[in-house]
Order: sequence, then structure tokens, then C-alpha cells
Amino acid sequence: MEIPLGFRFAGVRCGIKKSGKPDFTLIVADRDSVAAGVYTQNQVVAAPVVLSRSRTPGPIRAVVVNSGNANACTGEKGMQNAIETTNWVAQAVGCRPDQVVVMSTGIIGHHLPMEKIARGVTTAHQELQPGAEGFLAAADAILTTDNGRKVSSQAVEVAPGITAKIAGMAKGAGMIGPNMATMLGIVITDFPLTPQQAQQALQHAADRSFNRISVEGHTSTNDTLVLLSSNELKGVSSSDAGSLNRFQQALTDMCIELAKKIPADGEGATHVIEIQVTGAQSDHSAAKIARTIADSPLVKTAITGGDPNWGRIVSAAGYAGEPIEPERMALTIQGIQVYDGGAPVPFDAPQASAAIRNHKDVKLVLTVGVGPGQATFWTSDLTCDYVRFNSDYST
Amino acid sequence: MEIPLGFRFAGVRCGIKKSGKPDFTLIVADRDSVAAGVYTQNQVVAAPVVLSRSRTPGPIRAVVVNSGNANACTGEKGMQNAIETTNWVAQAVGCRPDQVVVMSTGIIGHHLPMEKIARGVTTAHQELQPGAEGFLAAADAILTTDNGRKVSSQAVEVAPGITAKIAGMAKGAGMIGPNMATMLGIVITDFPLTPQQAQQALQHAADRSFNRISVEGHTSTNDTLVLLSSNELKGVSSSDAGSLNRFQQALTDMCIELAKKIPADGEGATHVIEIQVTGAQSDHSAAKIARTIADSPLVKTAITGGDPNWGRIVSAAGYAGEPIEPERMALTIQGIQVYDGGAPVPFDAPQASAAIRNHKDVKLVLTVGVGPGQATFWTSDLTCDYVRFNSDYST
Repeated sequence: MEIPLGFRFAGVRCGIKKSGKPDFTLIVADRDSVAAGVYTQNQVVAAPVVLSRSRTPGPIRAVVVNSGNANACTGEKGMQNAIETTNWVAQAVGCRPDQVVVMSTGIIGHHLPMEKIARGVTTAHQELQPGAEGFLAAADAILTTDNGRKVSSQAVEVAPGITAKIAGMAKGAGMIGPNMATMLGIVITDFPLTPQQAQQALQHAADRSFNRISVEGHTSTNDTLVLLSSNELKGVSSSDAGSLNRFQQALTDMCIELAKKIPADGEGATHVIEIQVTGAQSDHSAAKIARTIADSPLVKTAITGGDPNWGRIVSAAGYAGEPIEPERMALTIQGIQVYDGGAPVPFDAPQASAAIRNHKDVKLVLTVGVGPGQATFWTSDLTCDYVRFNSDYST
Repeated sequence: MEIPLGFRFAGVRCGIKKSGKPDFTLIVADRDSVAAGVYTQNQVVAAPVVLSRSRTPGPIRAVVVNSGNANACTGEKGMQNAIETTNWVAQAVGCRPDQVVVMSTGIIGHHLPMEKIARGVTTAHQELQPGAEGFLAAADAILTTDNGRKVSSQAVEVAPGITAKIAGMAKGAGMIGPNMATMLGIVITDFPLTPQQAQQALQHAADRSFNRISVEGHTSTNDTLVLLSSNELKGVSSSDAGSLNRFQQALTDMCIELAKKIPADGEGATHVIEIQVTGAQSDHSAAKIARTIADSPLVKTAITGGDPNWGRIVSAAGYAGEPIEPERMALTIQGIQVYDGGAPVPFDAPQASAAIRNHKDVKLVLTVGVGPGQATFWTSDLTCDYVRFNSDYST
């Protein structure tokens, strides 16, 4: 892991999770960071989203996260609890409350156990440390139904001999149907940015990563993605377009790598499906078609069953509500051409089936016309385990 | 069953289905009927939809349906096969080919076995008979993955002492995500209508019935619903607004009754969920919110598990893309208030859970504001059996 300078991290147990797993994360910037955020587009938003949204872009000093309780649909008391949490963090860190961003994830409709939160603030503040060990502890404490830690990092030479570092952590395995950011994500860097540049860079990256994934398509009330720059990297300026572009590319790449870990860890998933749509009228149109295919339970279950069922894929594209040219449509599944010119192509079905069954990663490439629009979307398949898990688990 | 006069029916085996079950239906009007149709809004449409759509409204004499093969994504040859099927029916019946409507349902991407279709036309034509027995045989031969026959009928006094009959048959259990009509449906009546009245009446009924149901939300390439009036009922005119209104109400009621049989028979379903949304800005807006809730796998699996998980329902309403007032939202599950004024209401969770577990029918009533818009939507829950079935079955 390449961890940018200027930050300290802690991930601790405060007792919200019955399992006893870590459930409280604190990230502190040594000085005012340049911070940006993107948030769920759900109209039913959790208190921490309302509060954090009002504070970015801004000179953020700390990010506080609790897992195990979403503080969503909790009314005025929920908002007071979110505010109180950031007040406590501000006091511990020595900054203004509006310099603290808060995130929560877990069960909806329950009030935060504020005694445990208070304990979390104290403990986490004591354990703050820079570097990979602290970063990984922080990344672990934001997880809920995830099977494992989701982190990624990049080092990119933004100017001759000058290397910027970007590191990110995320959580999410269910209730994933992004529309803005999905899930919780925290990305830190030492590359110097203005608030506007930070916001634009994060939005650009989110639109190509966290907004291009789903598990079951249900947009959460708590989705939050923030970017913090410590501005610690010297000898380079974001007013240099070349440096900024290199940073943007590395940030986007890192966000894609991080985002793809979510459907790969989708609840009960046995495959992660990459859906590439080309020939659409615009990138936006291509993304909508790809998302419609991704969210079809019939497409998902076909992949679960190793069935190269092109009819379900082609017909899902047809009801996305975007312009397509049916007679120009073409499809490959795992590189095998199964549909072309709007008609089936003879193919070796057992071979195609094996190509799905024998790989966790399945790639669909669908051409919908001759337009310039293209997009890639990642989703998980749909299994009995997903159904079992979500019939039993109370979100 | 109340079967209108003026029609004859047959449902026979022509050998498309490997199971040997009936797979070919013919319905013939004794004279030119007044016919209307509504069709899938999928841009990828099967040949029979393209052909039938061009023939309604119009003076239809026959409806021919094969099950087991959808004749979808079959290119020019598929269109030729659809045309040839209606040519054969026209020859047998003694009408013009453009007086024949054709529907197909079953596997996508395979050419129709035309020898079997020819046999079907001959056999079915020989077996045509009026009345309930023929009607039910016809209703059985349009089924595919359905567990059972889907029929409904109404007798309505449209004027003093004058009773109109309406009878309908439908098929559908999967790939149900309507947007116009979903599935196959045929409705016949003796109530006299003009072509424009028939089209308007059918659209009105479809928008409140077949367009308000889903199983998994995947819109089919073949969805077709037609209405045929024999105009046999004497002593009443559709220019009488009162009579026409009574007919419309009965038609809508019958279509709702018929449509609800589809999610009730949804693949693997253990519950049928009725979602009533009120207080929206318009009926259209309410319907979109209801459909978004219906199509959430997290809502479906909560009901499967008997979990009164209001957080999933409320949050699904929030991402429907329609205006809502979160602080005015309220929800009852099986009549039990669980959410009000945008905040949780204490309720007896085990009692609510039992109220879901112990009933096949589950009713959710969600208020999203103080607007005049309302809509009701029906869907099925999501079970392991759905996943198993659609991992194994090739549509």
C-alpha cells in the first residue's frame, strides 16, 4: 500500500456490532485537507449524509465512520446524534465541528448508541497512527456484510521525479445500486488540489467507477464517497494541466479497481459480470443500457447457471428506454460471438457455457448501433445464497 | 365462465413442446370482430408483435397463438414464418391474412417449426367450438412456465335487462416487467364497440392491470394483449355513455383480476405483494414509485423471509426518481403502522412477521406526501426457487 503523507488512521471496536468486530473508524488530517464528496441521490437520506453533504467541499480535518448502524430514517434525533458525533470528534482533534465528515452504515431505523460512539471517539483518537497499519485497521472497521477488506492504492509520477500517492478504502456488498456514489468510500492523496479541482476530479472518477457498479440495484440511503488531499506533495502544482491529468487518470483507475471489489464481493455472488456497451448514442445512454442489463434478474441468473442466454441480454437492452438499432445489435459472451446484425449466430453452446462456469469474471460486449457512446458496468450474479442472506438479514 | 357469443375456440397439441402439453391455440370470430391491441414497449420485438401491431385496431377474424417458441430475435425468416402462419389461418378460416393476429411465447432465438405449425392450424381448426370447454382448452394451450390456467370473466348489466359478457385468458409467470401490456392476454366480449372505443377501453384497462404487475421486472419481447368484440349484444349502443362506462369498469376489473394471477403464479413465488402508493404528485408518479418498490430484490426477499423491513421499502421509494416528501412518509404492512411522519413507529415485530408469513397476500400501503396521485401494483416475492428455475431454464 502506498499511503499518502499527512494523515493518521484508527479502526477500533466500540461495541455496536454484536459480533465484536471493529466498528469505528477515525481518519485525521494533520492540517486542513482539501476535501470533496459525492453522495447518494436517494431522496430518503440518512442524517450523516445530510450533515456531511453540507460540509464538502471544505477544509476537512477528520472523517468518522461507524458500522453496524446506518442512522437512517431516524428523524431529528438521528440528526442530533450525527451532529454530536462530529462535535466530539472536533473536540478530540482540535478543529471546528464543520471540519468533520461523518458516515454511518448498517441497520436502518435505529438510533445510534451514543455511549458507544463516545467510547469509539476516545479509543480511536488514542490509537491514531500514520501508515499502512492504521490505514488497514480503518478499512476493516467500516465493513458490514463484506467478506473482506476493500482497499486500493496508486503511485503516479505526476511530474518528472515527483510521485503522488492515492489510497482508498471502501465497503459494500449489498443494497448496491449506485446513483452518484454508492456505498462508503474514502480516498486520500497528497497531490495538491483546490476545492473545485477536488470536487471535479472525484465526480469524474465516481461517474466511471462507483456509479458503474451494482449488486441488486437498490440505491442506499447512506452512500458517501469522499476525497481528501493533504496537499503534502511538493514541487508540483495542480495548475499544471499535465500533472492534473495524470493525477485524474490514476484516481479514476484506483476508483475503478476499488469499485469492482464491491460486485466481486456481492452477497452470495459466484460471478462478477462486466458489461461493455458500445455504439450507443452517448456514453450516458450506453451506461443506462448497461445498467438495465446488469439489474435484470434473468440476466444474472443465466450467468449463475452458466447459460449463454443471449436472448435475455439483448431483450434487456431493448427495455432500457434508450435509442438502439435492433438490426445492428451484436453480442459476445466471453469473447464468443453469439448475436450479430440483429440475428443469432451459430455457436458452440457447451463451450460458451464452460467459459462462464469456469471463470469468476464474465465479460459481455454488446453493440447497440453505430453511435459513439460506450460504457462499462460491473455487477454480480444472483444466487440462492443472495436470497437466503437477504431473507434472513435485517438491513 | 361467462363466454360471449360469436366466438369459437380450440387448444391443441402440435408438437412444439417437448412435454407433449397443448401448445397451439386458435380463436375465431364468426364475423369480423372489432379488435384492439396493446404491445410490449421493448425495442427488441418479436416478429409476431410487429405483424399483429400493424393489424390492430382492425376487423380481426382470428387469433392464433403458439407456445414453446417465441419467434423472437429470428430476423427476416422469423417474420416470414409469422406471416405464413397467419396466411394458413386465413385460408382455413376464410378471411384476409391481415384479419389474423398472431402471438408466440417460449424460447427466444429459434425458428418456428413450420411443419408443426401447419399441423396445429389444421387440427385446431377442426376442433373449434363455442362455449366454456373450447375457451378453457384455448387458455391451457397458451401457457409455458405457468403452474396453472389463468382465466377470468365478468357479466355486467350495461343497460336495464341487458347483460354484456367479457371473458379473458392470459399466460405469464416469468420475464414479467410490463411496460404496455405484459405477457399474452386475449379478452373477448359481445359488447358493441367502435375500433377507437375498443382501443381506448383496452389501453385504459391495461394501464390499471397488466401494466401494474411484475415478477422480476424484465420486459419481454413478445408481450401482447388483444380485445375482440363480436358486437353480438343487441339492444345497447356504445354511444350511450352510461353503458360504455359500465362496460369499461367491468373490463378493467376483469383485467385486474386476470393480471393479478401472473405475480400470484410468479416463478418460485411464495407471496404476492400488493403495493399501494398514495399522496404522490400524480397517478403516473405513484405507479413509478410502486413499481420501483416492487422491483427491489431487497424488498422482495424481505417479504420472502417474513421480515417487516420498512427501511428497504421506504428507501426504494426514495430512488424511484419521483418527487416525494420524506418527512410526510408513512407505511403500513398488513395494516400495521410501522412508519409515520418520516420516522419509525414502535410496532410488534413478531406480530408483523407472522402477518406476512401466515398469508400469501401481503399488502403494503405507502404514503409519500399529500398529492392526489395514487396507484396499486402487484408483484411476487423472490425465492431460491426463482433463482434455481432461471439458472436452469433457457428462455
